[in-house]
Amino acid sequence: MEIRVFAPASVANVGVGFDILGFALEAPGDEIVARFGNCRGVRIREITGTSRLPLEASKNTASFSAQALLDYLGKGELGIELDIHKKMPFGSGLGSSAASAVGGVFAVNALLGSPLSRRQMLPFAVLGEQIADGAYHADNVAPSLLGGMVLIRDNRELDIIELPVPDELYAAVVYPEMEVLTQASRGILSPEVPLANCISQTGNLGGFIAGLYRSDYALLGRTLRDHIIEPQRAGLIPSFPAVKAQALASQALGCSISGAGPSVFALFLGKEAAQKGGDGMQEVFKKAGMLSTVFISRVGANGAHLLPNP
Amino acid sequence: MEIRVFAPASVANVGVGFDILGFALEAPGDEIVARFGNCRGVRIREITGTSRLPLEASKNTASFSAQALLDYLGKGELGIELDIHKKMPFGSGLGSSAASAVGGVFAVNALLGSPLSRRQMLPFAVLGEQIADGAYHADNVAPSLLGGMVLIRDNRELDIIELPVPDELYAAVVYPEMEVLTQASRGILSPEVPLANCISQTGNLGGFIAGLYRSDYALLGRTLRDHIIEPQRAGLIPSFPAVKAQALASQALGCSISGAGPSVFALFLGKEAAQKGGDGMQEVFKKAGMLSTVFISRVGANGAHLLPNP
Repeated sequence: MEIRVFAPASVANVGVGFDILGFALEAPGDEIVARFGNCRGVRIREITGTSRLPLEASKNTASFSAQALLDYLGKGELGIELDIHKKMPFGSGLGSSAASAVGGVFAVNALLGSPLSRRQMLPFAVLGEQIADGAYHADNVAPSLLGGMVLIRDNRELDIIELPVPDELYAAVVYPEMEVLTQASRGILSPEVPLANCISQTGNLGGFIAGLYRSDYALLGRTLRDHIIEPQRAGLIPSFPAVKAQALASQALGCSISGAGPSVFALFLGKEAAQKGGDGMQEVFKKAGMLSTVFISRVGANGAHLLPNP
Repeated sequence: MEIRVFAPASVANVGVGFDILGFALEAPGDEIVARFGNCRGVRIREITGTSRLPLEASKNTASFSAQALLDYLGKGELGIELDIHKKMPFGSGLGSSAASAVGGVFAVNALLGSPLSRRQMLPFAVLGEQIADGAYHADNVAPSLLGGMVLIRDNRELDIIELPVPDELYAAVVYPEMEVLTQASRGILSPEVPLANCISQTGNLGGFIAGLYRSDYALLGRTLRDHIIEPQRAGLIPSFPAVKAQALASQALGCSISGAGPSVFALFLGKEAAQKGGDGMQEVFKKAGMLSTVFISRVGANGAHLLPNP
């Protein structure tokens, strides 16, 4: 028996919710295959799509999180093989390591007959991501696992609130071919925030969440603003101001940095607007000499799910 | 013809929403009476309940805001007399000046046949409150005028979002007989917030708003926490830590400072719990030698409204 899982990329921070908001994308994502094998615990059989991930099970986010799940279930010695098909870029700000961690946990849980719910799987995936970027936080893992837009009320407690997403809310995510390391991107952040900016940010976050509940696209547009993190990180992404200006000129509700960057996301009312807006953003990168890839997705995309066997 | 209006007190900040959240109380509040008179513009005929408010129309929040409304309507010379019956304490952190400003605008608008909606009246009431405390902000004015729980997404733009309130959400507000001046209470605040606290606050605010939409009392309880302002202001209110501890021991969902203080509010599931909790909080103040008054109110209380003529 073989289990094939798709675990999606995700957009963390979402401009207005640094470290506390994230949403899943329909694509890209990782594919993880799990089967029983003649080994002790979780082993990685192969990794495709990259040469940069460790095959050693204790150092790989997918196998580490899967092993943590096995251990929790008292089945730590059970032999399971994983294949990891990395189908998304690294260091892109799209939650690559989170997708692997989620995929590993989800696949092994499914292989065992799904003893745990998605919510119950969450801590193991977060542990897995932690070995990749050092922080215990769920703003990519939770959306990749649960789907849709997710509020991480508290990362330590993993107090996760799934938010409603208006049907016609679409994202254009543009990944320029460069790499920003999360730790470096965090390192430049000031440890202090002006109180006035904190007030603005709370007002905008509150309005953004109300906008999701009300399906109020105009309110989402007024509130998708980041006065704290984006100004500090914008300089890491060449042409960011021009790309954002292009998005807003294309009727984006808002535009900011995905996770730690360099991907840039913008939200739109409707798929067509997102496609057109994304193309325009890509064009701006191109004029600046940067290749990029555009992903268009419903914001209310599904979380990790089984794929049919080929 | 005489118009009698009740304009309620309100709880601003609500722990988790400094400068951006507020809710109306059923009581206390101001009563304002408006009638046409032989004067030019708005005049104050009498003020009861206090000797501390200016009778001079340009210096009194109720008449100032009412005059601003008249001017906007092109009827600045119309003679209107106001009686102000101050039925709530000053400097209590319960929005006394906001209630007067709202009452003045609401009464005059009603006297003129209600040409403006509540939302349209809002800027004039905010202007009125501004002459009392110097700041242009709506976190008391908006709930006093609109009722219920209100998010002030942006004070400058007066982008106001009315939030749903679960039916059984009640507040106990305890006013200890001392005075804290808003400006002094603002003056002690650090102009910088640690980024980590800003993240906690946004997570809690987001969860609190989701809790209102979901009628999720447990979530409201987990999120009604203030790591930024309350620690800085708690020292202004003698016995605050003991009063808060008593509230939480009485099953309060949360407890914090109302506005700039010294009133302390706690939220409860159900009126009975609020009454019992409020009594316990009052008892703690009493043991510390402080007289206090308890107000119990639905959080979803009505905003300013007409009273029957006596």
